[in-house]
Amino acid sequence: MENWLMPSFVDILDFIGTFAFAISGIRLASAKQFDWFGAYIIGFVTAIGGGTIRDVLLDVTPVWMTNPIYLICTAIAMVFVIAFGKYLIHLNNTFFLFDSIGLALFTVVGFDKSMAEGYPFWISIIMGSFTGAAGGVLRDVFINEIPLIFRKEIYAMACVVGGFIYWLCLQSGMESYGSQIVGGCAVFLVRILAVKYHLTLPILKGDEHSPHIG
Amino acid sequence: MENWLMPSFVDILDFIGTFAFAISGIRLASAKQFDWFGAYIIGFVTAIGGGTIRDVLLDVTPVWMTNPIYLICTAIAMVFVIAFGKYLIHLNNTFFLFDSIGLALFTVVGFDKSMAEGYPFWISIIMGSFTGAAGGVLRDVFINEIPLIFRKEIYAMACVVGGFIYWLCLQSGMESYGSQIVGGCAVFLVRILAVKYHLTLPILKGDEHSPHIG
Amino acid sequence: MENWLMPSFVDILDFIGTFAFAISGIRLASAKQFDWFGAYIIGFVTAIGGGTIRDVLLDVTPVWMTNPIYLICTAIAMVFVIAFGKYLIHLNNTFFLFDSIGLALFTVVGFDKSMAEGYPFWISIIMGSFTGAAGGVLRDVFINEIPLIFRKEIYAMACVVGGFIYWLCLQSGMESYGSQIVGGCAVFLVRILAVKYHLTLPILKGDEHSPHIG
Repeated sequence: MENWLMPSFVDILDFIGTFAFAISGIRLASAKQFDWFGAYIIGFVTAIGGGTIRDVLLDVTPVWMTNPIYLICTAIAMVFVIAFGKYLIHLNNTFFLFDSIGLALFTVVGFDKSMAEGYPFWISIIMGSFTGAAGGVLRDVFINEIPLIFRKEIYAMACVVGGFIYWLCLQSGMESYGSQIVGGCAVFLVRILAVKYHLTLPILKGDEHSPHIG
Repeated sequence: MENWLMPSFVDILDFIGTFAFAISGIRLASAKQFDWFGAYIIGFVTAIGGGTIRDVLLDVTPVWMTNPIYLICTAIAMVFVIAFGKYLIHLNNTFFLFDSIGLALFTVVGFDKSMAEGYPFWISIIMGSFTGAAGGVLRDVFINEIPLIFRKEIYAMACVVGGFIYWLCLQSGMESYGSQIVGGCAVFLVRILAVKYHLTLPILKGDEHSPHIG
Repeated sequence: MENWLMPSFVDILDFIGTFAFAISGIRLASAKQFDWFGAYIIGFVTAIGGGTIRDVLLDVTPVWMTNPIYLICTAIAMVFVIAFGKYLIHLNNTFFLFDSIGLALFTVVGFDKSMAEGYPFWISIIMGSFTGAAGGVLRDVFINEIPLIFRKEIYAMACVVGGFIYWLCLQSGMESYGSQIVGGCAVFLVRILAVKYHLTLPILKGDEHSPHIG
């Protein structure tokens, strides 16, 4: 984001995604009776946690440390929840759309960044998925819940599928920009369809007497 | 800490802060029936966790990996809790003072380190706050509690306020050493006053039907 | 692991350890009703989490990002649990042996890597212990349990003892390969004996009225 006074289309999508992720964290913090500070932190971690883990693993400066827009965006989300708290439930479908846009964009951004650092495609798919989904895992750890995406929803799997399709497009000779669109749309569609048709992965029924051997 | 056989005033404050943070972690681990090993680890994480997160984000070697004093200090805290466990409750006010000293010093140290690495003031304030407050968050994650500072206390906010005042001093042309004193005292005072007058941030009442949308 | 088509003896031990650690994570995830995706992630984190923390602290590329064998090994463990879930309980002794082999090998590998990066012995012992034991801590954080190794078992202490013995061997002039064997066997034996004779560390009885002062 070189010039955020004149945002590009991607900047706007990035803002929408960050906003939706921050809202998701702030609302959960609110349900747990967090104070304003705690809610802001949870919102921020949800928005930038995945990208931060990616950047630490890739050994580059976390993106939120290069531009204050993520702090500002979380602050706007915070004001939004404080002001419209009661009515937010009527916007759930809108937030779900925004969240899915963020998931798609973050996956593509994380994939690209890893490729640009010279990593192979399988690392890039993982890093795309971290960027999209790991913030929600950190959020759930901090609010002391089992991470939702490990149990109930097709969320990170949408990133994995979309990342793989993105890579297939690149492999097939499609140009970079087109591949990004296809990959991002794949994440978005998988996520939307999974929620619409209640698609879930099977629960693992290994054994119920698992000893704590590790 | 170039020469810890001849500690400077800052070294002594650093030791006091590390000791107080480690005691805080060890006592909570004790309340959770941890064994000696677990209690030591929790004490150590409480003391050095914030600085470690800061150093990983700044991409420098974590400070506890450059000097064994933090391991030794945690060991002394451990012996202290084992020897005087029953009587520690009478020292709560002393520990609270020590903890506040640590909070103030760690904030200033984290701020300085980020400025020295060339980061802007807003990153430095965040890094100062991480240094002061993130160890306690890691401690609470490991003992499987919702981090206290997200819910009940003005703790990290003292770091934010103190960091901001520190920066204002620097901006106003005050020399470095004086600014450190003012910034550190601001952290200390905000923390002490918040506890003395039961000041808290408002609880976020967003909505109670927050779906797990993220 | 330069050439995993022609694995060396150490590669085979590494595979066994990774497999056992992944199984441990997957079985616990199964007991918590995780879906396949969540179980895979928990298995993977258990296997590579300790080494990842070590590599982030040492500022080198995490080992699983240099070779897909760890992802593949976790996938095999996953298939194994899905296929033989009900019967795994009869293999508990075998898994315990594998897990102890992994613990020993990971400790030695982590120690060596830190020494090779030029760190002192006490950092190397800590990094060896992280490599062996921190994956299990991350696993327990993600399944929302208090980390087992902080409460009930001699697990990480086996790494610390083995790492120290390894260092003593090197100090006494023993050649590198022999020291590795002795250090690894020490980890293995301490772990096996601790379980066989129900050895535990004392529970810390500090005070039960520990305030949340940190």
